[in-house]
Amino acid sequence: MLPEPILRDVQHELLDWQGTGMSILEIGHRTPEFMQLMAQLEHKLRILLNIPSSYHVMFLGGAARTQFGMLPQNLLTHHQQAAYLVTGLWSKMAFEEAQKIKKAYCAASSENDGFVTIPDRSHWQVDKQAAYLYYTPNETVNGVRFPQVPVYPDTPLIADMTSCLFSEPINIEDYGVIFAGAQKNIANAGLTLVIMRDEVLQSIKNNTLPTMMDYRTHVQNKSLYATPPTFNCYLALKMMDWIEEQGGVEKLYRLNCKKSAMLYDFIDASPFYECNVKPDARSLVNVCFRMNASQLEERFVEKAKKVGLVALKGHRMAGGLRASLYNSMPVEGVVRLVQFMEDFAQENCK
Amino acid sequence: MLPEPILRDVQHELLDWQGTGMSILEIGHRTPEFMQLMAQLEHKLRILLNIPSSYHVMFLGGAARTQFGMLPQNLLTHHQQAAYLVTGLWSKMAFEEAQKIKKAYCAASSENDGFVTIPDRSHWQVDKQAAYLYYTPNETVNGVRFPQVPVYPDTPLIADMTSCLFSEPINIEDYGVIFAGAQKNIANAGLTLVIMRDEVLQSIKNNTLPTMMDYRTHVQNKSLYATPPTFNCYLALKMMDWIEEQGGVEKLYRLNCKKSAMLYDFIDASPFYECNVKPDARSLVNVCFRMNASQLEERFVEKAKKVGLVALKGHRMAGGLRASLYNSMPVEGVVRLVQFMEDFAQENCK
Repeated sequence: MLPEPILRDVQHELLDWQGTGMSILEIGHRTPEFMQLMAQLEHKLRILLNIPSSYHVMFLGGAARTQFGMLPQNLLTHHQQAAYLVTGLWSKMAFEEAQKIKKAYCAASSENDGFVTIPDRSHWQVDKQAAYLYYTPNETVNGVRFPQVPVYPDTPLIADMTSCLFSEPINIEDYGVIFAGAQKNIANAGLTLVIMRDEVLQSIKNNTLPTMMDYRTHVQNKSLYATPPTFNCYLALKMMDWIEEQGGVEKLYRLNCKKSAMLYDFIDASPFYECNVKPDARSLVNVCFRMNASQLEERFVEKAKKVGLVALKGHRMAGGLRASLYNSMPVEGVVRLVQFMEDFAQENCK
Repeated sequence: MLPEPILRDVQHELLDWQGTGMSILEIGHRTPEFMQLMAQLEHKLRILLNIPSSYHVMFLGGAARTQFGMLPQNLLTHHQQAAYLVTGLWSKMAFEEAQKIKKAYCAASSENDGFVTIPDRSHWQVDKQAAYLYYTPNETVNGVRFPQVPVYPDTPLIADMTSCLFSEPINIEDYGVIFAGAQKNIANAGLTLVIMRDEVLQSIKNNTLPTMMDYRTHVQNKSLYATPPTFNCYLALKMMDWIEEQGGVEKLYRLNCKKSAMLYDFIDASPFYECNVKPDARSLVNVCFRMNASQLEERFVEKAKKVGLVALKGHRMAGGLRASLYNSMPVEGVVRLVQFMEDFAQENCK
C-alpha cells in the first residue's frame, strides 16, 4: 500500500519528469538529473534514520532474499561461522541459506513453539567467535516481533528489516548491517536497501566474489555500477518526503502502536477471534488472528474484499488471517477493519 | 524511450489496476491478478520470439550485469572453461568476470582495432571442449554488431541481447542462453529476461550456489521464488502488446534497418561527420559518429537537447556522439535528427 498523494504525484509527472520532457521510466541512470535524485535519496534517508557517516548506504536491484546468500558469501571466511536466531519463516530461510553456502548455527529457535514467541534470551547460544549474529526483528508470517534489540558487544548484528524499517525508531549503531526490501515502507518491489558499518565492509576479504555480489562494488560505485532500478529509487525519494511530512519515524511509530493496539485489544476482548502470539512478542505491523470457527475464514476474506478491505488472508505457510498495518495504512483503515470484524462476528457467532 | 501510448496507459490506470482498487505499484505478487499477468507475459513473449517449449523463460530482478557472474557460476565445473568473443566493452566485462570466477579464455578480440570491427571468423579459437561460447551480438558503446550468428554445432551459444532483443528476428534454437536487461526494448530498468534451453539448465550440477543465483530456483518457481519486480513485468506485458500491434519483430526489424541506413547514409555522404565502424559490423540500433572538429561535439549535444533531441552524447568510455534507435524511436525521430545534423553542419562547417 502506498499513500494516495504519492500515487497521484507519480501519475501527474509520468510523461514529463522535472521538465526533462522524458518519463522517469525512460531516464538514463547517468544523467545529471538522476544522479541528483540518488544523492537526495541518500541524504534524506540518512537524516530520517539518523545514519552516522561511518555507515554506507547501498541501493541494490532485486529482491531482499538475495541478501540471504550475499551476507555469508561476503562476511564469512572458511574458518568462521555465524549465529542465527530462528523465529519465523524468514529467519529460518536465511539460516538455511547460510548453512548451504558457509558455516552457520542456530543460536536459538522458536520453531517448536510454532513461531509464536521469542525464545528466552537466557537460553541463546551466541558464541563470542561468531562472525555475526543474524535476526529478523519482525517476522511477517506469524506476526512476531523482538521486544528488544539483541545487542552483543563483540558481535556485529545483522537485521532483516524488510517489514519494519521506518515503522519504529532504531539506533543504527546497534547494527553491523541492516537490509530491507523496498516493498513495505520504502517503494515498490525490485529495490533492496542495505546499510552497512564501514568496519563490516572492511572485513570482507573474499576476492573471488561475483562483482555484483560483492558489497564493495556497490559502495565504491555509489550503487551505480550497473543500472539501478531507477523508478523504484524515484518512488523511494517520494516516500522519504512523505515520511518527513508525517513527522518522521518517531511519529509513525506512535501511530503504528496505536493501530496495532486497537486491533489486538479488540481481538483479545472478543470470544470470536483469537491471536496466539505471546503478548510481548506481537508484531506492530502484521496482526495475525484466527476465528474459533476456521471454516468461516474464507467467507471473512471475501466479504471484507467487497467493502474494500483487502489482503486479509494469512500467509500460505501459516493460514488464518492477517492484517498488515504498514506506514501507509491510516488509523481510519484500522477503525473500519475493527468495525467490520465486529459486524462479521455478530452475524456469524451462533 | 517508451512509446507514448504506453506511458499514457500506465498513467491512466496508476491508481486502479484492472478494477482492483489498487495500484500496480501495490499489488502482491501472489495475487491471482498478478499471477495471470505473469502467465500472459510469458505467453506473449513466447509467441513474439517463437520460443519452443524446450526453452525456459525467467523474469529476474536486478541488472543484466548479474548474469556475467551467474553464467559461469552455474554453467562451468572446475574442469571446464568457456570461450568468449570480445568485441566491445560489454563482452570484455563479461569475459573478465568469468575469468575472475571460473576458467574462461578469449576466443577472439577486436580490442586492438578499437572495437570498430568484428574479428574475422577464420581466426577465432573456439575449442570443442569449451562449455559454452559467449558473445554480445550488439555492442552499444562503439555501435558494433555481429553480421552473423556464431553457431558451432557442439557448443551452446550464450548471447547478451540487452540492446537488441526484439529489434531483429532471431532463431531461438541457435542459442543455449539468451539474456537481456529490460531497459532498452522490454520495460524499465530493474528486470532481466533469461531464455535458457532445458539441456543447458539440466547441465547445472553445482549444489552450493546461493539459491537466488541458481537458475534452477527461478525455473522451478516460475520466477516467483522471491518477490519479482512487479511493475517492470506489468510494463513488459504492455510492451509485448505494443510490439504485436506494430506488426511483430520482423516489422520492427525492417524499420530499424530503414532508420539506421538513413543515418549511416547521411553520415557517409557528409564531409562533416564520420562513422569509423566497418560497414558490415555496424549496429542497427546504436549509431556512433564523430565530427571532423571534435571541439564542436559539446555544442552539438546542447543544441540538439534544446530542440528535443536528447541522449546524443557518446558513452563515457568511447566519447564522440551516439544516436540510439531502439524500437520506440519512430522513423520521424531519425528524419528530424538528420535534418538537425545537416543544419548544424552548415552552420559550423567553415
